Amino acid sequence: MLKLYGFPVSNYYNMVKLALLEKALPFEEVPFVSGQTPQVLAISPRGKVPVLETEHGFISETSVMLDYIEQTQPGKSLLPADAFGQAKVRELVKEIELYIELPARTCYAEAFFGQAVEPLIKERARTELLAGFATLKRNGKFAPYVAGEQMTLADLMFVFSVDLACAVGKKVLNLDFLEDFPQARALLELLGENPHMAKIRADKEAAMPAFLQMISKRK
Amino acid sequence: MLKLYGFPVSNYYNMVKLALLEKALPFEEVPFVSGQTPQVLAISPRGKVPVLETEHGFISETSVMLDYIEQTQPGKSLLPADAFGQAKVRELVKEIELYIELPARTCYAEAFFGQAVEPLIKERARTELLAGFATLKRNGKFAPYVAGEQMTLADLMFVFSVDLACAVGKKVLNLDFLEDFPQARALLELLGENPHMAKIRADKEAAMPAFLQMISKRK
Repeated sequence: MLKLYGFPVSNYYNMVKLALLEKALPFEEVPFVSGQTPQVLAISPRGKVPVLETEHGFISETSVMLDYIEQTQPGKSLLPADAFGQAKVRELVKEIELYIELPARTCYAEAFFGQAVEPLIKERARTELLAGFATLKRNGKFAPYVAGEQMTLADLMFVFSVDLACAVGKKVLNLDFLEDFPQARALLELLGENPHMAKIRADKEAAMPAFLQMISKRK
Repeated sequence: MLKLYGFPVSNYYNMVKLALLEKALPFEEVPFVSGQTPQVLAISPRGKVPVLETEHGFISETSVMLDYIEQTQPGKSLLPADAFGQAKVRELVKEIELYIELPARTCYAEAFFGQAVEPLIKERARTELLAGFATLKRNGKFAPYVAGEQMTLADLMFVFSVDLACAVGKKVLNLDFLEDFPQARALLELLGENPHMAKIRADKEAAMPAFLQMISKRK
């Protein structure tokens, strides 16, 4: 049985969890916190979450886990059948990660944990996020899902990245990234109604107090 | 026939070019420069190079192109046959990109184009690059290739990222990332002897003057 290591506050953890739930796969959740200790690094080479334990060993990096699950596990498919269609989904996954999730992440400390971020970092995040949302608007299908009529891996990256990036926009950059992007707003709402999202939200809320306490101790 | 859009000075362009050459595939190189004009954005949603034109349309993002070529084209395989082995290669590709190429890139302007980079950005690059090289040391096999006995996609990301990151280390951060990493030094040397690398280096050198002139005009 697949084991998912991490914690339910992590957006990347929740991408993989939603894939497993959508496919109705049995899996075990293993509490595991990122860090640079030898114990963590033995499982996750960069000390990050999530990690997927398979019968063959551990896999790091969310997009790699998602591809592995897609390739090896039964259940609802989250990629089209043809190679070009798969490439277009992976392109969207990567664009959302590189140009929305990662720049937004540079401001998470200020948006969510009350730690000021340097003005230079915020200025760069603003420029990159504006370009990132323009990229998504240009390349996303939103019909109604990011890559077309079916839910795909791109929607997992979308739903757990765009919400946080929007919070960064509002709380840190005084920007509403979805102001003229109604198709993304509509998709966030649609994915929010997904029954597995209710479980993921509840697990996240339950785990949040302990997580905030840990962050506060690490400051 | 596949068409590769970009310019021979781009390290990402050269990763895809080396894959095509290793597989002995026919392909056409189409001169194409990154930018934010409507013409460029119609082909590349984020305005970046390279782009791969296939019979079905355009694909952006190097790792996505590499997977697509692997999945659809004949010739020498650059991935293992089993899904777990493929995941481990993709994990290394992503670790090298996220934790070495991208932080090094934040200092390329100072390392290669005589434009000063802010101290805060350099300090972050230093921290991230040290962690990135430690990750590669921990997770790479170097037997002698990054992922084991065979050349894989991880070696393409390695050879065109680690050399630039080392130049950033020496020129900008006063660090030698390979000082205690002889297995990476040996692999750079081995891959440097690859016959296709000679062509890629020659094409890069031939294109460099025009590229530097363009950069200087854009300043």
